[in-house]
Amino acid sequence: FPSKFPTLATTIFAKMSAMAAEHGAVNLSQGFPDFRPPQELLKCIQRHIDSHTHQYAPMPGLPTLRQSIAEMHRRTHNIQIDPDTEITITAGATQALFAVIATLVHPGDEVIVLAPSYDSYVPAIELMGGKGVEIPLSSDFSLPTLEIQKAISPKTRLLIVNNPHNPSGKILSAAEMHFLENLAKANPHLIFLFDEVYQHIVFDGLRHLSAITYPELRKRAACVYSFGKSLNATGWKIGYIVANEPLTREIRKIHQYEVFAVNSFMQAALAEYLPDFDPSVLVTHLQAARNYLQTLLSETRFKPISTQGSYFQLYDYSEISDLDDVLFTEWLVKEVGVALIPISVFYKNPPKNQRIVRFCFAKRNETLQLAAQRLKNL
Amino acid sequence: FPSKFPTLATTIFAKMSAMAAEHGAVNLSQGFPDFRPPQELLKCIQRHIDSHTHQYAPMPGLPTLRQSIAEMHRRTHNIQIDPDTEITITAGATQALFAVIATLVHPGDEVIVLAPSYDSYVPAIELMGGKGVEIPLSSDFSLPTLEIQKAISPKTRLLIVNNPHNPSGKILSAAEMHFLENLAKANPHLIFLFDEVYQHIVFDGLRHLSAITYPELRKRAACVYSFGKSLNATGWKIGYIVANEPLTREIRKIHQYEVFAVNSFMQAALAEYLPDFDPSVLVTHLQAARNYLQTLLSETRFKPISTQGSYFQLYDYSEISDLDDVLFTEWLVKEVGVALIPISVFYKNPPKNQRIVRFCFAKRNETLQLAAQRLKNL
Ligand SMILES: CSCCC(=O)C(=O)O
Ligand SMILES: CSCCC(=O)C(=O)O
Repeated sequence: FPSKFPTLATTIFAKMSAMAAEHGAVNLSQGFPDFRPPQELLKCIQRHIDSHTHQYAPMPGLPTLRQSIAEMHRRTHNIQIDPDTEITITAGATQALFAVIATLVHPGDEVIVLAPSYDSYVPAIELMGGKGVEIPLSSDFSLPTLEIQKAISPKTRLLIVNNPHNPSGKILSAAEMHFLENLAKANPHLIFLFDEVYQHIVFDGLRHLSAITYPELRKRAACVYSFGKSLNATGWKIGYIVANEPLTREIRKIHQYEVFAVNSFMQAALAEYLPDFDPSVLVTHLQAARNYLQTLLSETRFKPISTQGSYFQLYDYSEISDLDDVLFTEWLVKEVGVALIPISVFYKNPPKNQRIVRFCFAKRNETLQLAAQRLKNL
Repeated sequence: FPSKFPTLATTIFAKMSAMAAEHGAVNLSQGFPDFRPPQELLKCIQRHIDSHTHQYAPMPGLPTLRQSIAEMHRRTHNIQIDPDTEITITAGATQALFAVIATLVHPGDEVIVLAPSYDSYVPAIELMGGKGVEIPLSSDFSLPTLEIQKAISPKTRLLIVNNPHNPSGKILSAAEMHFLENLAKANPHLIFLFDEVYQHIVFDGLRHLSAITYPELRKRAACVYSFGKSLNATGWKIGYIVANEPLTREIRKIHQYEVFAVNSFMQAALAEYLPDFDPSVLVTHLQAARNYLQTLLSETRFKPISTQGSYFQLYDYSEISDLDDVLFTEWLVKEVGVALIPISVFYKNPPKNQRIVRFCFAKRNETLQLAAQRLKNL
């Protein structure tokens, strides 16, 4: 049988975590915290295992969880969302992204992707017969406004925006959001997919400007979120999509045959816990971890590139090695014992001579120390 | 934006369960038990919430769970399966079916579907640009061997076989499996998708003949399984795919961008529990439930159609009403207070004048009694 993706490899995240395990390396590659979810939440899940039904949740998600989510967005972003018609619970954010792309991308459609970008976007687009049109972000990872405008054609169905941005940690400014609003107004056929999985993880007193708060975008956007990233539980694979009612209706048609529904007792527990969720605890912790890693690495020739949010910080290693980033990270994981992500995997067409790697700093101090110890002579 | 499925409605299962709730009806529609998963398994999950990591499981699934699955198939079907290269853990069987279809169906491909058939197959095929070629099963739900042979064209990529069969409960005989083996030999371009989610639920001392045990099929088949159906926990949404190594490799390329991975602590708990799993307890219980429902309904004019496995039994209601099955089930849920599934939803082209509905008997005796009480004057 013919392969749909003859040259596609295993995701870099699976590959690097496997190599880290194999070589006993400190794993700062795949984006996951090495500390645990809130203890009260774990207790809450255990209670729901005793008390809740273990049969199918409703296809779009448990009503109580959708209400808790709407209430959380009201609290954190001052937005009203209709839990019945605008929220769909998914088997993680990757499945949410896939469902939105499968809903919107028809064969021949073009989708604008801003590189570096998360590695699942383009394969999902291609699986639907669409074409990923890759535009590089500006050198400071801000939006390349002219290039985006030029790239929009009558075939452009979708523009994918990741904010806060993985791998750079860049947060879109009010001016950038305004640009996107105007883009929406000027291009009535264009739809937006906002990947906002790091919505709560924003540093230095900055604010995340959610697309849902912009009326012109909200009319034409699907926004994707992750409980794993907000609750230190990437292993749970529960996320959700916020989209207006007509778009949600179409997304659910795909979702119902892609996975149907999501773990029922987990949804019940999250619904009960969310009113107590306070992102500031996590933000304080992760901002300190970012700063701590910077301090530790200041004794090396890794040069930090500013990050404003997410789990990640990019570092330039051009003073350390001439190897390309894939070879450099393979050498690091095998010989030095630290697993990182090469930035080139986030591109269809990686720029030449970019000597940049991604660190995940969502780790305990001991873990960051151990990594730094191994890196200190570089 | 154009809809991919302008006329597609919400799945009949979501719709009927919602109507049952709305009208206070006894819900014998959507296939789920109203009794709980084994208590030791629930305790095992609670322990793993305390002890296991809450971060990403490996993309193809936890190695220990894949080993436990291989060992279970060895025990129940005397088959060797390589856990590393032939098993992939999925977010339920619906996602497993979707991943296999997305892997194999290219635009223009034909897929043979034997009707009545599970409602997710054809939409998934169509989403991939394929065409579902529907062939009706024989009147006793056995394989229409001549029609299948005639339907195979050079464009036929896939044949989907559901065994035990939903909604009829029919189990394939050794002769039917032999026919499929010969079909595989005669058509080297044909691949098989075996939906074996009811593998353990087989009555009257019959045996489920798994496709994996037939070398000619195993070479060319992906087989889909569900923990929800085997462990009374349809709400967990964990399943798996067994397929040979080259096919598994391609399936994982899709899976990694469709959902990436599945809940890690649930996988760890299932891995620990599976060695203690004994399907005979469930089979005894469900066979008694099937018989009990038959006894209860023998006082009505519902006429049972023989079932050999699964959660389901079809009944002919032609002596009760002339309404078509959709109208009949709507009337039943609203006016009589019992929710059932009309068989016509399992067809692209439903046969005319079929007066058949599906009962889910995977229920406690009280539930079946209450339903029968409401139905007794029909
Ligand atoms: C689904 S594994 C990837 C996790 C992640 O978001 C990242 O490392 O970028
Ligand atoms: C995913 S809901 C459908 C459950 C089921 O298998 C059925 O009722 O046939």
